[in-house]
Amino acid sequence: MVDPHVFVILGGTGDLAARKLLPSLYRITDNGSAYPVILAVGSRPNSDDGYQRWAATALVRAGIGADDAATWARQHLLYEQVARDAASFAGLRKRIEQVESDRGLPGNRAFYLALPPAAFAPNIDNLRDCGLNDGPGWTRLVVEKPIGTDLESARSLNETVRGAFAESQVYRIDHYLGKETVQNLLNFRFTNPMFESLWNRDRIESVEIVVAEDLGIGSRAGYYDKSGALRDMVQNHLTQLLALIAMEPPNSFDAERIRNEKVKVVEAIAPIQLENVVFGQYGPGSINGEAVVGYCEEEGVAPDSTTPTFVGIKTYVNTWRWEGVPFVLRTGKRLPKRLTQIALTFREPALCFFHGVPDGCEVANNMLLITLQPDEGFSLGFNVKSPDTDTKLDAQALRFSYSDVYRRLPDAYQTLLLDVMKGDQTLFVRADEVEASWKLYQPLLDHHPAPHIYAAGTWGPAELEQGIALCGSEWMGR
Amino acid sequence: MVDPHVFVILGGTGDLAARKLLPSLYRITDNGSAYPVILAVGSRPNSDDGYQRWAATALVRAGIGADDAATWARQHLLYEQVARDAASFAGLRKRIEQVESDRGLPGNRAFYLALPPAAFAPNIDNLRDCGLNDGPGWTRLVVEKPIGTDLESARSLNETVRGAFAESQVYRIDHYLGKETVQNLLNFRFTNPMFESLWNRDRIESVEIVVAEDLGIGSRAGYYDKSGALRDMVQNHLTQLLALIAMEPPNSFDAERIRNEKVKVVEAIAPIQLENVVFGQYGPGSINGEAVVGYCEEEGVAPDSTTPTFVGIKTYVNTWRWEGVPFVLRTGKRLPKRLTQIALTFREPALCFFHGVPDGCEVANNMLLITLQPDEGFSLGFNVKSPDTDTKLDAQALRFSYSDVYRRLPDAYQTLLLDVMKGDQTLFVRADEVEASWKLYQPLLDHHPAPHIYAAGTWGPAELEQGIALCGSEWMGR
Repeated sequence: MVDPHVFVILGGTGDLAARKLLPSLYRITDNGSAYPVILAVGSRPNSDDGYQRWAATALVRAGIGADDAATWARQHLLYEQVARDAASFAGLRKRIEQVESDRGLPGNRAFYLALPPAAFAPNIDNLRDCGLNDGPGWTRLVVEKPIGTDLESARSLNETVRGAFAESQVYRIDHYLGKETVQNLLNFRFTNPMFESLWNRDRIESVEIVVAEDLGIGSRAGYYDKSGALRDMVQNHLTQLLALIAMEPPNSFDAERIRNEKVKVVEAIAPIQLENVVFGQYGPGSINGEAVVGYCEEEGVAPDSTTPTFVGIKTYVNTWRWEGVPFVLRTGKRLPKRLTQIALTFREPALCFFHGVPDGCEVANNMLLITLQPDEGFSLGFNVKSPDTDTKLDAQALRFSYSDVYRRLPDAYQTLLLDVMKGDQTLFVRADEVEASWKLYQPLLDHHPAPHIYAAGTWGPAELEQGIALCGSEWMGR
Repeated sequence: MVDPHVFVILGGTGDLAARKLLPSLYRITDNGSAYPVILAVGSRPNSDDGYQRWAATALVRAGIGADDAATWARQHLLYEQVARDAASFAGLRKRIEQVESDRGLPGNRAFYLALPPAAFAPNIDNLRDCGLNDGPGWTRLVVEKPIGTDLESARSLNETVRGAFAESQVYRIDHYLGKETVQNLLNFRFTNPMFESLWNRDRIESVEIVVAEDLGIGSRAGYYDKSGALRDMVQNHLTQLLALIAMEPPNSFDAERIRNEKVKVVEAIAPIQLENVVFGQYGPGSINGEAVVGYCEEEGVAPDSTTPTFVGIKTYVNTWRWEGVPFVLRTGKRLPKRLTQIALTFREPALCFFHGVPDGCEVANNMLLITLQPDEGFSLGFNVKSPDTDTKLDAQALRFSYSDVYRRLPDAYQTLLLDVMKGDQTLFVRADEVEASWKLYQPLLDHHPAPHIYAAGTWGPAELEQGIALCGSEWMGR
C-alpha cells in the first residue's frame, strides 16, 4: 500500500529524530506497514556506519532491544552530511539519486524538517534550488511545529513553502492529531448517530477542552520564555481539538473535505474578548508532594518574565450548530496532573419530575468526557438511582477505556509518519487553517494580558474559576 | 418513615414465605428500614415458638446465620392458625387486635396473600366479612401474581378485590418491578436528558425485550402446563417492562401519575397479529453440555401437551413517540442462559461518510442494552476506530455494571415489601393495567397457535429468527 521511497530526515542527528522519529520508523517497518530507505541528514561529518551505531543507541533508549536496534539500523539507515549551501544540497540530491538507482527505487521522496524553526525557510529554499522539490515520483515535505510565532511569521513561512511546494505536497505535523483518540473523534462523531444527534446547541450546554501538564519547562527556557502557553499549546493543539469537536460532518472521509470543514469552524470562532481570557504563570508550589520552584526561578528565565504558562479562554463558535454554547479552553504547566480531556456537558433535565419528592434530589448534568491522555477513552456521566433509596441519585459513568481492549495504541508519530508515506493529509494542518488560527489569537499576542500567579500543583489562577470556567475543576479529577 | 404496623402473611408456612418473604423481612428490619410485627397465618396448628423455629430454619437456608435467624424469629414472628371460615377469621381479627393492644400499635395492617390463586377470592371475602378490610389505621392488601388466567378471570378477581378494598389499598406484586434496574429505568430515562432525547421513533429503529431462562419447569408441571409462557411471563413481566420503556414522562414522580402513563402505553399497544407471533416448546437438547429432556417428557406433563414454553411476539406501540418502531418480546424456558435484557437499537448512521473508503467499512448500529439479570447494568454499543488501521471500525461498548459500584442490590421482594409498608404504590400494578394487558393477549389465548419445537439450549424456534426477530440472537450473547 505504501510506495517504495526515500525518507529523508533533515535534522537526522537531533533530539526529535532520536526520541520520536527513529523509534516510530522502526515500528513502522517492524509491523510491516512500509519499508522506506531512510536517509538521515546532519551538519556533522559521519559515516553510514557511525550514524547507524548512534541511531541504534537512540533506539535502545526508546525501549527496543540492542540486537534488533543494531540490525534494523544497518538495514534501513544511511547518513549524508549536508551544510546549508547550494553545493551541499546538490550533493544531497546526487546521494538520493544514487540510492534510488542502487536500489531500483522509482524516485518517491519525503523530506522531514526535524529542525529548529529558524532553519525551515533556508532548507525549503535549498530543496527548491537544487530541484529536490519535485522528483521523478512523488515528493512530500513534512514541517514540524511551530508554524510561525504569530500571524505574520506564519504567513511568511507558508509563503516560502508555497514558493517551493504545492499544498498537496505539504504535511504540517501537529502530533496531537496523531493520537488515536483524536483520530477517533471523527469516527466517534460520524459513525455513532446516537452521539451525533446530541451534538448541538439544543442538547449541549458547554464544551471544555483542557490540556494539563504537571511538568514545568524543564531545560526549554530558551524556547519557552519566548513562546508561552498561547503559542505552545492553544494556537495549535487546543484549537485543533476544538475544530474536530465542533466541525460539521464532511460529505466523505476525505482529507480535503475534512480540512475544509475544520477551517470553516476555526474561522467561525468568535473574536476573543479580553474579559474572557485569563493568563497565568506558575509560582512556587508542590506537585505530588514535591516542592517545585516558580516559573521565574527556573534556570534561564528572567526574574520578571511575564510569559504565560497558563491560558484559559472562553469563546463561542458562531455556527448554526453551536451559537451561544461556551467553549472553554484551558492549558497550563505545573497543574496537578497530566491530563488531556474534552468535556461536553449536556443541558439539565426537566426537574419538574422531582417536584414534591420529599428529600429533594440532586440531578447531575449528563457529561461526555473524552480523555486523550494519559488513559485514552470515553466516559459518559449519567444519573443512577442509588440502591436502597427511593430518590437519591448517584453520578455514575458508562466507560470505555482503550487499554481494556487494545494492547498498545500506536505512537502519534508512528501514525503520522505512516500517513505521510501513504499520502494521506487528513491529520495534517493546512496553510489556511494555520493562518485562521493565528488570526484568532493575534489580538492576544498584541495586547498580552498580565499573567496571574498560581501555585504550582493547583488547577490555575483563581481568576479563572471565578470568571470564565464552567465546570470547575472537579471533573478533571475524575 | 414507616408507620408501626402488623404485617400479616396469609400463607405464612408456604414456599414463598420461606424462600422470599421471611428473608426479605429479615433484611428490612436488619438494616433498620422498618420494624413490623409479623403475624404468619397457616391452616396447620402450631405455636408461635414452633413457627419461629420453622422460620429460623428457612432463614438459614437463605444464607442467614443460625443465631441471627433464631433471635430475629423470636423477636419478630407470631403465628396464628386460621381455617377458611368466618369463625377462624374472627379469631384472626381478635389476635391482631390483641397484638396491637399488647404492643401499643395504632392499628395499621398489611395482609399479604401468599396463597395459591384459587384461595385469593375466598380469603379476600373472609377479610371483608370479619371487618379486617378496614381497621383503625391503614389497611393494605398485597396480591401475588397471577392476577387471573385470562381477561375474564382477572376482571372477576379485580371485582372481588374491589368489593372489599379500595384500589388505593391494593398492592399487586410483579416482582420484576422490584428489581433495581427496573426501578432505575424511570430514573435512567427521566434524569438523563442525553438518553431521553434519543428515546423516540426518530432515533430508535427497534426495541427488543428478552426474558430467557435456562431452567425447565422443574417440579411445577401442575401449574405450568395450565399456564404456559404467555400467562407466566408475557402478560405480566414483559408487558411491564415494555410499559416502562415506552411510557411518556409523567408530570411528577408520583405513583398514580406513573401508573396512568403505564396504562396509556399498554392500551396503545397495537392488536397482535397472528403472523407476528411464534409459540415454541422445548424438545430434548442440552444446556451447558448436559443433556435435558423435552417439555413433553417432563414429569407431570402430558406427552401431547401443546403448552408453549416459548413466546415471541412482534408488535407496535401506537403513540406519537413510537409509531412504526417494532417492539419484539421474547421469552422462553431452556434457552442457553438466564438473561433479562432490553435492547434499543438506534437507526443506522449516514453511510455516505464512508463512500470511497478503499477497504469499505462495517458500521454497527448503536445499541443500548439494559441488563436486568444476571449482571445488572447498562451497555452502550458504539463504533470505535480500530487502532493501527485507517478505517476499520470495531463494535465496542461503554459499560456500567451495578456490581462494580454497589455491593449488593436489594432483593426485589425486599424493595416491594418495604414499599407496601411505606404505602408507595408506584411499583405495583393497578387493576386497569392488569386488565388492559389481558385484553391485549386474550386473542392469543382464544386462538392458541401451535408451538414449534426447539431444541433445549437454543434461542428458540427457527421460525422466530426467520420471521419476527430483529437483531438475531447474537446480542444476547454479549
